[in-house]
Amino acid sequence: MTGGSSLVRQLLAGQQRAAARMITLIEDGDPAVDPLLAEIFPRTGRAVVVGVTGPPGAGKSTLVEGMVRSWRQRGRTVGVLAVDPSSPFTGGAVLGDRIRMASLTRDPGVYVRSMASRAHLGGLAEATPAAVRVLDAMGLDVVVIETVGVGQNEVAVAHSADCTVLVTMPGTGDGIQAMKAGLLEIGDVFIVNKADRDGSLRTQRELNAMLRLQERTPRPAVLLTKADVGEGVDHAVEEIEKFLADRRDTGRLEERRLRHLQREVLEQIGAQVRRQTMAALDTAIIAELSDALRERRMDPVTVAARALALAATQQVGKVT
Amino acid sequence: MTGGSSLVRQLLAGQQRAAARMITLIEDGDPAVDPLLAEIFPRTGRAVVVGVTGPPGAGKSTLVEGMVRSWRQRGRTVGVLAVDPSSPFTGGAVLGDRIRMASLTRDPGVYVRSMASRAHLGGLAEATPAAVRVLDAMGLDVVVIETVGVGQNEVAVAHSADCTVLVTMPGTGDGIQAMKAGLLEIGDVFIVNKADRDGSLRTQRELNAMLRLQERTPRPAVLLTKADVGEGVDHAVEEIEKFLADRRDTGRLEERRLRHLQREVLEQIGAQVRRQTMAALDTAIIAELSDALRERRMDPVTVAARALALAATQQVGKVT
Repeated sequence: MTGGSSLVRQLLAGQQRAAARMITLIEDGDPAVDPLLAEIFPRTGRAVVVGVTGPPGAGKSTLVEGMVRSWRQRGRTVGVLAVDPSSPFTGGAVLGDRIRMASLTRDPGVYVRSMASRAHLGGLAEATPAAVRVLDAMGLDVVVIETVGVGQNEVAVAHSADCTVLVTMPGTGDGIQAMKAGLLEIGDVFIVNKADRDGSLRTQRELNAMLRLQERTPRPAVLLTKADVGEGVDHAVEEIEKFLADRRDTGRLEERRLRHLQREVLEQIGAQVRRQTMAALDTAIIAELSDALRERRMDPVTVAARALALAATQQVGKVT
Repeated sequence: MTGGSSLVRQLLAGQQRAAARMITLIEDGDPAVDPLLAEIFPRTGRAVVVGVTGPPGAGKSTLVEGMVRSWRQRGRTVGVLAVDPSSPFTGGAVLGDRIRMASLTRDPGVYVRSMASRAHLGGLAEATPAAVRVLDAMGLDVVVIETVGVGQNEVAVAHSADCTVLVTMPGTGDGIQAMKAGLLEIGDVFIVNKADRDGSLRTQRELNAMLRLQERTPRPAVLLTKADVGEGVDHAVEEIEKFLADRRDTGRLEERRLRHLQREVLEQIGAQVRRQTMAALDTAIIAELSDALRERRMDPVTVAARALALAATQQVGKVT
């Protein structure tokens, strides 16, 4: 554990290399990272965590880049966790984007890290909050999680962020449709980017109308931005700060964080028992249960109960 | 269990009311449904399960409707499970859509059921395969799951379907972007709907180019349809049937089904232990662990391990 604790010491001293190493361990699902995460946990909760999500093509990365600059001008340090596979942060970039990003990452007050969105069960849901905590513990003031609103990513964001920013753009009406389809509820601040395009005011109006139906107080702001020329981005950051200040003052920020932590515990209970159960069972038993499934003699609920019971008899000493 | 078994008897006799009741129990997470699902499981696996997913606005519902008609003309009975909140099946419809759907549901060889996509942990992932099994056991030949490619829905589809159909449309390039962002891998058949619009051939070409990079054999088909006028829909159904026949012949259909069942077992292990753990722990202990989380004295991984250990000492008799 000496190596581990020295990694933690380096992280708490703000060393980016230590953060990179810990996040790699998290991505790999390496259990060696668990005691390190336990060690840094009391040093977390200081950063504010802002999730930015929305459909591909809405200009999220450019917006995030502008937001980072705005926070830097306010003297805040910023970490960006990019879990959007189409983002220039993670690799889906054209050359121009990469050059812009590079200028951003030369600032020592900014740390950008991409995360692989892997397919294994609960992968991203487990990895995202852990990675956020690493950036938090290294002393960054703001942690931005950028994801694309497709797949399970935006759910992981909503369960890690203090404030979720939903980005869309004017146009085909699909942006609005996507919002309707389950995303509207998770947004705290809404942004219609590419506001120089036709229909931006209509999109803003439609979003406002949909949000009025929800009767949330305060009603989320719907802002217009042109992130490519920097317009409206400072104002967006101000709205995010206002939302966070209000949440902090009313105690709702603490409530939300506790809810997220409790949810994470439930996910961890599942993950830990899955690992323990698979480790405890003989290959022969696993093959037998698998045959029962294939031949449809025993359904998944029954097989799960059987596997748990068999594992429990084999590891009563271990679990208790 | 007499009531339960009579419900199962009615379901196996093809009664839609019995199916509706069982799916409601599944949606509610009612444990009373577990023995019923165990009872019907040996009678499942006969239907082919086709998932249809894609971004909102791509015309999925109209396409599904056309596909249902096409299967009916081939003499197959069809069930539709709609988990798309923007679908006319589930309620997001304009009047014209509703009238069309109504004509479809008057056919006794068609059973349409919408499913609430609820927020609780693993809700849809647990509910979808169970609901599919209900439709399978009632004797339908084809079960279509319609979801929107936003949120966790499309993942649930990919883990329940024998064939996943990805629907997109020509236009802004966002369709392609969305595909890039993690959806491409889960598609078995690709459809560019609204093919009368500009750019449909280009979208088809781009999808083909992206699929060529994946080196799958056989390479998935990319089809053009105009579902609103019925064009290309029969051909799409033929391609789906061809895909399924090939998968069946090569044994890959059985493999895939077993993989899905195994995944479901792992999810069930997590769900069952979560329920057992929460039931076994005193309110006082839960409050204590929650305080430790809030005050950041103990991280989620440690709290989960502690909760599991405490629950195990309290219910050793129950689990073993």
